[in-house]
Amino acid sequence: MATSFGFLMRGLILCLCFLCLFQVSFGAKIRHYQWEVEYKFWSPDCVENPVMAINGKFPGPTIRAVAGDTIHVELTNKLHTEGVVIHWHGIRQFGTPWADGTASISQCAINPGETFIYRFKVDKAGTYFYHGHYGMQRSAGLYGSLIVDVAEGEKPPFHYDGEFNLLLSDWWHQSVHEQEIGLSSIPFRWIGEPQTILMNGRGQYNCSLAAHFSSNSSLSKCTLRGGEQCAPHILHALPNKIYRLRIASTTALAALNLAIGNHKMVVVEADGNYLQPFEVQDLDIYSGESYSVLITTNQDPTQNYWVSVGVRGREPKTPQGLTLLNYLPNSASKLPPSAPPVTPRWDDYDHSKAFSNKILALMGSPKPPTNYDHRIILLNTQNRINGYTKWAINNVSLAVPATPYLGSIKYGLKHAFDRNPPPENFSSNYDVMKPPMNPNSTHGNGVYMLNLNTTVDVILQNANTLTANTSEIHPWHLHGHDFWVLGYGEGKFRDGDEKKFNLKNPPLRNTAVIFPFGWTALRFVTDNPGVWAFHCHIEPHLHMGMGVVFAEGVHRVGNIPNQALACGLTGKRFMKNN
Amino acid sequence: MATSFGFLMRGLILCLCFLCLFQVSFGAKIRHYQWEVEYKFWSPDCVENPVMAINGKFPGPTIRAVAGDTIHVELTNKLHTEGVVIHWHGIRQFGTPWADGTASISQCAINPGETFIYRFKVDKAGTYFYHGHYGMQRSAGLYGSLIVDVAEGEKPPFHYDGEFNLLLSDWWHQSVHEQEIGLSSIPFRWIGEPQTILMNGRGQYNCSLAAHFSSNSSLSKCTLRGGEQCAPHILHALPNKIYRLRIASTTALAALNLAIGNHKMVVVEADGNYLQPFEVQDLDIYSGESYSVLITTNQDPTQNYWVSVGVRGREPKTPQGLTLLNYLPNSASKLPPSAPPVTPRWDDYDHSKAFSNKILALMGSPKPPTNYDHRIILLNTQNRINGYTKWAINNVSLAVPATPYLGSIKYGLKHAFDRNPPPENFSSNYDVMKPPMNPNSTHGNGVYMLNLNTTVDVILQNANTLTANTSEIHPWHLHGHDFWVLGYGEGKFRDGDEKKFNLKNPPLRNTAVIFPFGWTALRFVTDNPGVWAFHCHIEPHLHMGMGVVFAEGVHRVGNIPNQALACGLTGKRFMKNN
Repeated sequence: MATSFGFLMRGLILCLCFLCLFQVSFGAKIRHYQWEVEYKFWSPDCVENPVMAINGKFPGPTIRAVAGDTIHVELTNKLHTEGVVIHWHGIRQFGTPWADGTASISQCAINPGETFIYRFKVDKAGTYFYHGHYGMQRSAGLYGSLIVDVAEGEKPPFHYDGEFNLLLSDWWHQSVHEQEIGLSSIPFRWIGEPQTILMNGRGQYNCSLAAHFSSNSSLSKCTLRGGEQCAPHILHALPNKIYRLRIASTTALAALNLAIGNHKMVVVEADGNYLQPFEVQDLDIYSGESYSVLITTNQDPTQNYWVSVGVRGREPKTPQGLTLLNYLPNSASKLPPSAPPVTPRWDDYDHSKAFSNKILALMGSPKPPTNYDHRIILLNTQNRINGYTKWAINNVSLAVPATPYLGSIKYGLKHAFDRNPPPENFSSNYDVMKPPMNPNSTHGNGVYMLNLNTTVDVILQNANTLTANTSEIHPWHLHGHDFWVLGYGEGKFRDGDEKKFNLKNPPLRNTAVIFPFGWTALRFVTDNPGVWAFHCHIEPHLHMGMGVVFAEGVHRVGNIPNQALACGLTGKRFMKNN
Repeated sequence: MATSFGFLMRGLILCLCFLCLFQVSFGAKIRHYQWEVEYKFWSPDCVENPVMAINGKFPGPTIRAVAGDTIHVELTNKLHTEGVVIHWHGIRQFGTPWADGTASISQCAINPGETFIYRFKVDKAGTYFYHGHYGMQRSAGLYGSLIVDVAEGEKPPFHYDGEFNLLLSDWWHQSVHEQEIGLSSIPFRWIGEPQTILMNGRGQYNCSLAAHFSSNSSLSKCTLRGGEQCAPHILHALPNKIYRLRIASTTALAALNLAIGNHKMVVVEADGNYLQPFEVQDLDIYSGESYSVLITTNQDPTQNYWVSVGVRGREPKTPQGLTLLNYLPNSASKLPPSAPPVTPRWDDYDHSKAFSNKILALMGSPKPPTNYDHRIILLNTQNRINGYTKWAINNVSLAVPATPYLGSIKYGLKHAFDRNPPPENFSSNYDVMKPPMNPNSTHGNGVYMLNLNTTVDVILQNANTLTANTSEIHPWHLHGHDFWVLGYGEGKFRDGDEKKFNLKNPPLRNTAVIFPFGWTALRFVTDNPGVWAFHCHIEPHLHMGMGVVFAEGVHRVGNIPNQALACGLTGKRFMKNN
């Protein structure tokens, strides 16, 4: 009797498990892609230069999936001498930290001629993108969009009739290889400001769609037929509809601002998380960020409208990127009667801060734990090491090792990286308002070892660069997690500043800026076993050492493909048995 | 009694063995080098461009050793995203085929941040060099000289009082990365002629040391102080002495011709093998070749003399490379009173052939076996594959696999490359004097499997390119061996042509040309277990598929460092045990 009851129960449990399984996989798909990465000549801004193309196209193909789907990308490296990886920016990679696509951290770079399979779940709807994460291959054009729709039967918390997608980037005519050499030269050679802003990989150099509104009479009007690689991606809209405009920035450097003539935007999503909707005239977007805004096409239907993207945060030397919001059935070649929206002054940080402070989580979003278990304060400074100009965090400039951390930590290799963890704070008498007294710093590759399932606060502390009265904006991006942005402050973070933290409705994001001479407070939970980069998303800054590495619960990570670790000391270790 | 005699004998044998060992190692050294490869801005021809530097210098350091020495190079890859290897051109690598430095053939490319140790013996005195052998890294400047002196107590078969070394190369202002993209573009973009000829990494673009002799009045005289990276490497000589001038060519493309004003040259060495001395006014040298010539400084001692290097074999668009033979104690800034020697017409092939036919082995040199065991005929054609312009051998354009052959053959991997060997001949009705009727060809990565210790004849057959009435010179270089050059012929090689072979004193070389519309016959003995590239030494031609792969006795190869095979399928195989 007891036995048959037990048998029944076991059967019931088994059934429930099957049901669970069914529910989880209901509608979820495995989406297969076969991609080849190679260099190609391309004219993103009407000037031909090499780009990193995927399947012969720049930008790479857009991945469109549904929350719960599995993405399966067979990535073949068709480059001649360079390795390659792809990072899926904003995807947390629960259970698949080896698929995060960060060279030296989550995997070995894929060798020329080899194929690596990225396979991971997209668990959360949102606007994401992917990009190279090796050397400066992102700057070279290795990127594309990744858009995850809500699962079948679910709805986003706002209505829209149609949508557009704009992936923003910046573009240089100097090759990334030369940029890299300059950054590692004595004297230091900075990459300078981009030649062109690209929208979906398209921009115009040395001509303007809005030339006749320009005070610069030497600037000619672009004569484009629409089939050119540099012809703008026009947004074709019907009047009196609501559109969701997805905007993501994978710039190498530029902080951008987007505005649409005559149209206000309601911001509803940031980095794959819903926001308390708020209205703006223009939108600041830093490298590594994504937003969705809603626009209503309720303006004069006989006109088209400018979409303009300008540079902020650095003295801009790059013309606005332009395209059109085309009200159908108007011709897309009909230009608006007035000039494109003017980008707010580059150094109007109050404008920037006001925008950032409006970003709050939608009611009902996950709230942060009330207290933290572990606080790390990260001072961002410009430094010199043996005459080379570098960026450093708590005086350590990150120089990643040849062996990926995920393998060297998992297998307890002793000599793969510095086992002394980097400092969790900086000297209390450091004056963030002045150039560093002693600008010398060191290279390092230590790791912040975090306990699993704890709450970590990170205070990003900005400071003066090597030049007096100068401090730059840095957008910091965390891999493997979203964090709550608890607040921003001016000057040095001090005891007591945590009282100003917003614990009520802070937004969840994967990227947050530090403003000049200020601090930004973030909180996240170490719920994702793996090794995760946390770094300034300005690519040359990361290249110059502006990043740290977090590890959590690596002993729990399983199923790392051997190929991900077939280099450096993990490669050697595996081969010893030979 | 028998026992004690046996004991004595054993002792004697042991002693003899020790003596042998002693003799072999007597004077022989292990020469240690620590090299770091990185890109650097450099001005090889007074115009700044990226170069691949070793330890911060371009060209890389000269290795100088004595026959019998062991070279031990710890090569660290300091590039950001590119792999690297170094090939020791002309060194046969007996017993160390894994140290041959050919990516995909003898080893995996060394990953960024990793160090690979090349350790090999230089068994034969001669003039050699080393260079990159991955993608087009040689064109990017990754090269240097390797000079092996005769063993202590030995003498070369000619006298000289001093010596000079000239490593010749050609230089483009377009980056190698862009060149590679162009070669893989539709329509095809050829790299064009070099901007500058470099001598020891030094040339002058847009100015000339001999401007006042030039009919081109727009060409300015170089104003160099001598400390510049592009200042010529002057040869400082004493009057009435005999100098050995070592000349090697690592050009990417150019066939060169070197002449010295007022001085004849006696050619005494080619590719590390002594020649029957012969006198010339000028010396043809193809990429991959090296020579020693003797010059006697018996001219007017109050003057200096031009050393000039011009392009042959292709319509030259590159100015002569120039430097000075400076008779001490004259000032090195004193220019010769007359113009530099004029390079023979680029298409005077009779001149070229006359030179090649003068090259004969010094009496007493090793003679070829009288008969061959195996003959392979290799037709060189320009082709199209899917619209891409390629070079092919017997209609197969080489596309090397991701897994080095040395590992995949040694470990019997079935899927690393096409196990069907490539064709050993071409269609008997192929007309080498006309563009191919059907220019379509295929990619392939099959291997010519040669039996160990057999005599192989290779007939290199030239043909018309895709353009009518055009056939180009190709210098073919064999790894792991010297071959005897048995002869050159016009048109298609026919049965009976072997009767014209020189079996008496053919020169031993590692590089030999095929002349336009002609054939070249080579013989070598498969006495070196390993996998060996045999290819056109014009780097873009190899990049376009102009090469084959020979394997011999690979089962006998031992001691391959695991790191050499830590990629592709060998990497995977080793890691399976994990």
